[in-house]
Amino acid sequence: MSLAAIPAVRRLIELALDEDLGRGDVTSRVTVGARGPIIVADMTAREPLVAFGFDVAQAVFAMVDPEIAVERLVLDGAVVDAARGNRITMMTVRGPAHQVLAAERTALNFLQRLSGVATLAKRFADAVAATGTSARVVDTRKTTPGYRVLEKAAVLAGGCGNHRFDLGSGVLIKDNHIAACGSVRAAVRAAKAGAPHPLRIECEVTNLAELDEAIAAGAEIVLLDNMTPAEVQIAAAIAHERHVLVEVSGGITLATVAAYARAGADLISAGALTHSAPSVDIGLDVRA
Amino acid sequence: MSLAAIPAVRRLIELALDEDLGRGDVTSRVTVGARGPIIVADMTAREPLVAFGFDVAQAVFAMVDPEIAVERLVLDGAVVDAARGNRITMMTVRGPAHQVLAAERTALNFLQRLSGVATLAKRFADAVAATGTSARVVDTRKTTPGYRVLEKAAVLAGGCGNHRFDLGSGVLIKDNHIAACGSVRAAVRAAKAGAPHPLRIECEVTNLAELDEAIAAGAEIVLLDNMTPAEVQIAAAIAHERHVLVEVSGGITLATVAAYARAGADLISAGALTHSAPSVDIGLDVRA
Amino acid sequence: MSLAAIPAVRRLIELALDEDLGRGDVTSRVTVGARGPIIVADMTAREPLVAFGFDVAQAVFAMVDPEIAVERLVLDGAVVDAARGNRITMMTVRGPAHQVLAAERTALNFLQRLSGVATLAKRFADAVAATGTSARVVDTRKTTPGYRVLEKAAVLAGGCGNHRFDLGSGVLIKDNHIAACGSVRAAVRAAKAGAPHPLRIECEVTNLAELDEAIAAGAEIVLLDNMTPAEVQIAAAIAHERHVLVEVSGGITLATVAAYARAGADLISAGALTHSAPSVDIGLDVRA
Amino acid sequence: MSLAAIPAVRRLIELALDEDLGRGDVTSRVTVGARGPIIVADMTAREPLVAFGFDVAQAVFAMVDPEIAVERLVLDGAVVDAARGNRITMMTVRGPAHQVLAAERTALNFLQRLSGVATLAKRFADAVAATGTSARVVDTRKTTPGYRVLEKAAVLAGGCGNHRFDLGSGVLIKDNHIAACGSVRAAVRAAKAGAPHPLRIECEVTNLAELDEAIAAGAEIVLLDNMTPAEVQIAAAIAHERHVLVEVSGGITLATVAAYARAGADLISAGALTHSAPSVDIGLDVRA
Amino acid sequence: MSLAAIPAVRRLIELALDEDLGRGDVTSRVTVGARGPIIVADMTAREPLVAFGFDVAQAVFAMVDPEIAVERLVLDGAVVDAARGNRITMMTVRGPAHQVLAAERTALNFLQRLSGVATLAKRFADAVAATGTSARVVDTRKTTPGYRVLEKAAVLAGGCGNHRFDLGSGVLIKDNHIAACGSVRAAVRAAKAGAPHPLRIECEVTNLAELDEAIAAGAEIVLLDNMTPAEVQIAAAIAHERHVLVEVSGGITLATVAAYARAGADLISAGALTHSAPSVDIGLDVRA
Amino acid sequence: MSLAAIPAVRRLIELALDEDLGRGDVTSRVTVGARGPIIVADMTAREPLVAFGFDVAQAVFAMVDPEIAVERLVLDGAVVDAARGNRITMMTVRGPAHQVLAAERTALNFLQRLSGVATLAKRFADAVAATGTSARVVDTRKTTPGYRVLEKAAVLAGGCGNHRFDLGSGVLIKDNHIAACGSVRAAVRAAKAGAPHPLRIECEVTNLAELDEAIAAGAEIVLLDNMTPAEVQIAAAIAHERHVLVEVSGGITLATVAAYARAGADLISAGALTHSAPSVDIGLDVRA
Repeated sequence: MSLAAIPAVRRLIELALDEDLGRGDVTSRVTVGARGPIIVADMTAREPLVAFGFDVAQAVFAMVDPEIAVERLVLDGAVVDAARGNRITMMTVRGPAHQVLAAERTALNFLQRLSGVATLAKRFADAVAATGTSARVVDTRKTTPGYRVLEKAAVLAGGCGNHRFDLGSGVLIKDNHIAACGSVRAAVRAAKAGAPHPLRIECEVTNLAELDEAIAAGAEIVLLDNMTPAEVQIAAAIAHERHVLVEVSGGITLATVAAYARAGADLISAGALTHSAPSVDIGLDVRA
Repeated sequence: MSLAAIPAVRRLIELALDEDLGRGDVTSRVTVGARGPIIVADMTAREPLVAFGFDVAQAVFAMVDPEIAVERLVLDGAVVDAARGNRITMMTVRGPAHQVLAAERTALNFLQRLSGVATLAKRFADAVAATGTSARVVDTRKTTPGYRVLEKAAVLAGGCGNHRFDLGSGVLIKDNHIAACGSVRAAVRAAKAGAPHPLRIECEVTNLAELDEAIAAGAEIVLLDNMTPAEVQIAAAIAHERHVLVEVSGGITLATVAAYARAGADLISAGALTHSAPSVDIGLDVRA
Repeated sequence: MSLAAIPAVRRLIELALDEDLGRGDVTSRVTVGARGPIIVADMTAREPLVAFGFDVAQAVFAMVDPEIAVERLVLDGAVVDAARGNRITMMTVRGPAHQVLAAERTALNFLQRLSGVATLAKRFADAVAATGTSARVVDTRKTTPGYRVLEKAAVLAGGCGNHRFDLGSGVLIKDNHIAACGSVRAAVRAAKAGAPHPLRIECEVTNLAELDEAIAAGAEIVLLDNMTPAEVQIAAAIAHERHVLVEVSGGITLATVAAYARAGADLISAGALTHSAPSVDIGLDVRA
Repeated sequence: MSLAAIPAVRRLIELALDEDLGRGDVTSRVTVGARGPIIVADMTAREPLVAFGFDVAQAVFAMVDPEIAVERLVLDGAVVDAARGNRITMMTVRGPAHQVLAAERTALNFLQRLSGVATLAKRFADAVAATGTSARVVDTRKTTPGYRVLEKAAVLAGGCGNHRFDLGSGVLIKDNHIAACGSVRAAVRAAKAGAPHPLRIECEVTNLAELDEAIAAGAEIVLLDNMTPAEVQIAAAIAHERHVLVEVSGGITLATVAAYARAGADLISAGALTHSAPSVDIGLDVRA
Repeated sequence: MSLAAIPAVRRLIELALDEDLGRGDVTSRVTVGARGPIIVADMTAREPLVAFGFDVAQAVFAMVDPEIAVERLVLDGAVVDAARGNRITMMTVRGPAHQVLAAERTALNFLQRLSGVATLAKRFADAVAATGTSARVVDTRKTTPGYRVLEKAAVLAGGCGNHRFDLGSGVLIKDNHIAACGSVRAAVRAAKAGAPHPLRIECEVTNLAELDEAIAAGAEIVLLDNMTPAEVQIAAAIAHERHVLVEVSGGITLATVAAYARAGADLISAGALTHSAPSVDIGLDVRA
Repeated sequence: MSLAAIPAVRRLIELALDEDLGRGDVTSRVTVGARGPIIVADMTAREPLVAFGFDVAQAVFAMVDPEIAVERLVLDGAVVDAARGNRITMMTVRGPAHQVLAAERTALNFLQRLSGVATLAKRFADAVAATGTSARVVDTRKTTPGYRVLEKAAVLAGGCGNHRFDLGSGVLIKDNHIAACGSVRAAVRAAKAGAPHPLRIECEVTNLAELDEAIAAGAEIVLLDNMTPAEVQIAAAIAHERHVLVEVSGGITLATVAAYARAGADLISAGALTHSAPSVDIGLDVRA
């Protein structure tokens, strides 16, 4: 399904068009005129990247002018080995000059950002793949507000996995929930009794006693936050013996992710995937 | 004016709440209940940062529950010298546990991202200030789609300046516009004749001949893209002699920005301010 | 969290107000005037029901006029043993006559419908509770479009449980998915490999061979669709031996639900809870 | 005019798509892939029904993927004499498996509900037609909030009529309005003086004295609420003699509607048409 | 009911704020600062006018900043006998300078326009009142798109009446409808059979034969378009004899309206009321 | 770029369709049926006008029914020399009768209003052109709320120019800003220091001393409000000597505009262009 088919994504694109084009494009108006000649332009990668976001970029052009024809040359998730001096065309755009130029920046802004997330995800996925373990790096809810579904799809495109989508599609018991229930046991029990059956019960634990208590109460996943790989190794061994999944989190970086994979984590969640991925360099080159 | 008073900003916040809370908070429901006890929580900085985004964070809490009371302890743009081991409270939140926990992530996501932009802007502004020149670092239209007004305000909070807001509030003639008009001269003339009088005419030039042609035609600002500081120095001297402002752009980094300032640029525009600012570390600590 | 804090719920309420009040209330205008006297009115139950929807009803009055004061006398989920001749006040409303009368119908329409769902859910929950089993009746995605979060909350208020919220918060493999993958085994394996870890894997099976195949491949829940209680009993015994949950579905009614509970189903999903719950009788009585 | 051309209807459909598809379809993604094969599917009736809602169902498929081709085989309002064992295809859908499956439930939910209203309306209309009178059963404002225009169209499709659309398109004076004006006479006079001329003046009356007063003051329609057929007969005779229409209301059921028609009511309004119509059984069968 | 309580009106106000304030108020920011001092300002009439639109103006200020306090000194519909040299305060505003100045223009734009409609309506109403007839000037559907409910309320405030609100709240048979049905008779009959009973049947007629045909078929109102007062006089006499209302339309002006009233028209509809009412002069004076 | 490509313009069109068609077209339904025959209709000018608004009118028809085919016969900005007795077709529409008739009024309302603005702008532009000066008449922010981008485009189509689009795309220092800064000098200096560099600094002055102070401080445009042409002449001479643009404003009319042009104003801003332009006469003639 095209991500742009989701009404909330369309609303985001509309916010973007309103903010950049809502008063028209004065420079194009006075120089190019109301339409100008038909131009062809290449959307090119200018550094190595994982491409993602074409659904949205295409929707941007289509909203600005349905006459603009877009051709995609690479698939979502493609690894594009480009450089400043070796631009690789990912998408071709053909339409009236005014309209193409007016839509350019918004389309690029989406594409650069989402490809940035996919590219960083690929680096994390590769780092873990190199360990030969079955650990999976997953995202978090630390996404750009309004971009959850887009950024989670970019994470998948880069080879990592998704954690729960939102507060309604996963049970993750944290310290404050435990405090409200009085104990790990009580919290896990309450969750097992009250949560929708399609959801597994995950509980954050801070030491081995809590680990034991959570598992005994029926937790199916334990979350180890801010532990060292050595600590994770011990906890993971216990959890795995009892067929419980182990997730680790807390300041995971490209430098440390492999160590956590080797320590036995099944899931390694990294907020940086979405909250700190830099944009990648993509531009639009109008053909002469 | 509170940024959250802008209807488009409210729509962005609503997108964010729908995506995270739209199905409810299942974990809080089964452990804390429909409201839970009244809790007090501190929104704390955990690394050095420039704080920005409180209008939005406050609006998030207010939309989730008007009963939640928020107190701001630092102003927008404040430099907060915190660290992991030296958390500094920037905002205090008081309300029912379920509601505060449900709103926490969305509020933090906005705050971490916008403070990230302000923090990076401060580093750029400081780098230029150290040169003793009057150069000003400004943002671009390479913002997160939907975040233009928020990120531009964050840039100001960090001490940099704003370039044109959108395609309708500035005239910036680029190569494609020049091609459409036939010459630099024709493009600048067309802009002077047709653009609203409150807008200055800026024209991108790629060499000294174009620089001369643009100024002769009446350009009030020239944009030098992807030139070296040495090249800028020559061009700027010519432009300044004729009372024309000089803007430079193209891959400006913290490492290179000072050299451009010393070369005589009046404005240095940096897309990185908004497209690649990493989030800063801010969290919510519930008081015991 | 008030359901009316969810922006999508507010948009639904706004649709409702626009459609009924968007052209004003011509009768009240010409008889009562622009405001009329302050009146007090009781929202009363007139048949036995489970009350639900006060968040929405209250938001309706508040949107029409923030001056209208609302007092709730019963909690969401309360069993109200009323009758035509024994009206029980659930909520009291005080405000200008024109505004209260203009908002009345919209508020009642929400309340009657949502209480209708809660009331029917209670009857299903009671029918199963009477069996002494631990079976739980759950809803489906057969909700009124636009009412998912409201109707699922009403189902909980009536004592039943929720199935997955949407297509993104649960994995339920059906025949068409199996056909696409080639076999039950392949489909379940694909789901286990690709689905977010907070989600359990549920697979629909149509016979004991598929049941065996699904469980062997790792399904954690099996869905038995349109089977008789006798068939369910056999399948459930096999599944339970292997620690797998059993859900039954397909034309479940108040008359048949107990038999399925006794047959060993853990979950019994009933679309009727939301797609065919009749409204209950609630009215607004203006005090003299 | 397609009902889906009304912007408010599109907003309702968008709410529905956001709530079910807003996080993607995780099961289809991991089993079918991003698109899957092109499939053909039949939307089939499985019980006797009056078909209604194809505009909306078609719009749902078009929004999810404009590539999906839809063919309608029956008209809105068609009586479809189907059964579980005699499925009748009403609409055919052809498109990528993932997209068709993702849109299926939302399209069906609209169609089942709106056809349910049309089907119930047909039963009421038939019951009155059998009396040989010219009485017409009409709907009320007791519609599902947000569904007014859709449900009123479904009522027409089932052969009943529409009452006023909203508070602005009909004058209906009730007890509270009368109280505000001081008397039936004053209220009717005020309405005649102040209401837009395209609207008739209708007044609720509770006894023969009020009936007389209302007519004398110029009421063109009288509403008799909660009267027995015998009481209606007397009142109707008086009203008809003076060329005034008679509407009855209050707990009208399929069992009682004919008696009111025979008693002389011109209009019989039944909230049950829209607030308590059960869904009808419609499904989507993917062709092998 | 405050007009600003209608969600569609709020959406219009939001469009207005986004278009004027959506990028912030740069002049106030650099001169006044983020808030500035608390100021008090008077919204003053500067020419004779009928005041209308305070609900909307007040909502504008409240949306920009809930801290702004507004006091209304005149009622909707008040005749304000002001002049350039005799400014009359209609509303007082108190709040932070930046916020008040930022909201000023949008609030004034609404107020000037809606008061302009009310003022023109008053002139039409006065012109007819002077004839001593009971004719009523009414509006049309020729309103500013998006302003229907606001402008119709302004028309009422000025002393004229409303015609049908929209295409769904009145039956007005025109030439094209007649052509589709084959005859005036057929069209009126179809309308009487199919239209909701709260609506009267109005039919446009172009000569006395059609007038006769329409009345014989049951039309309750006849519309005479583009006839001279003399022609109207004849037609009206015939219609009134048969208890049928007469509406005239077509280029009605202040100069001609009285003649039509004297000719016997019951209703005189004038598009100019809403499509050509000039703004009236209202300004905001900040107190020293 | 089609104006209807701007999401905010689409929202305005949707408001317009909801308010007129949101309850369906009852007259067309009962006379023409659900679609009726295919008709062809001409949108004709009936008085001399400057045509503008076809983008929006076309979008209205397309939203009501994508099957409706529209052909434009004149360009935006065309001078159409029509009369009541000499109708000139500007646009042709072909589609199902019901749908065309339902969309007619909304399309016309936009077209009549926007062409009215363009027509008035032409008269102002012509009046100034006749002076042989280079003065330009420009619009203001006194536009119909929600119509800013449409009305400003209509002003351009009529041959006048645009002033700043909104509060964010121009710096215009007025008395209240000056008061906040303490002096003209301080205000202008603050603006030069803090405003985005693409914006010129404009300052309102009320006498020659302020004029001098503003220019000395760096103002690039001075605004003379409510001065006589004689006063303007003196001030303009001073300003022009110092290469500063002169704008005049305040109750400019067709009768006075030429005098201001001759007095040396570079820009003459007239709120009447948008706040008081009467609609022009355009209608839809269905072909036999």
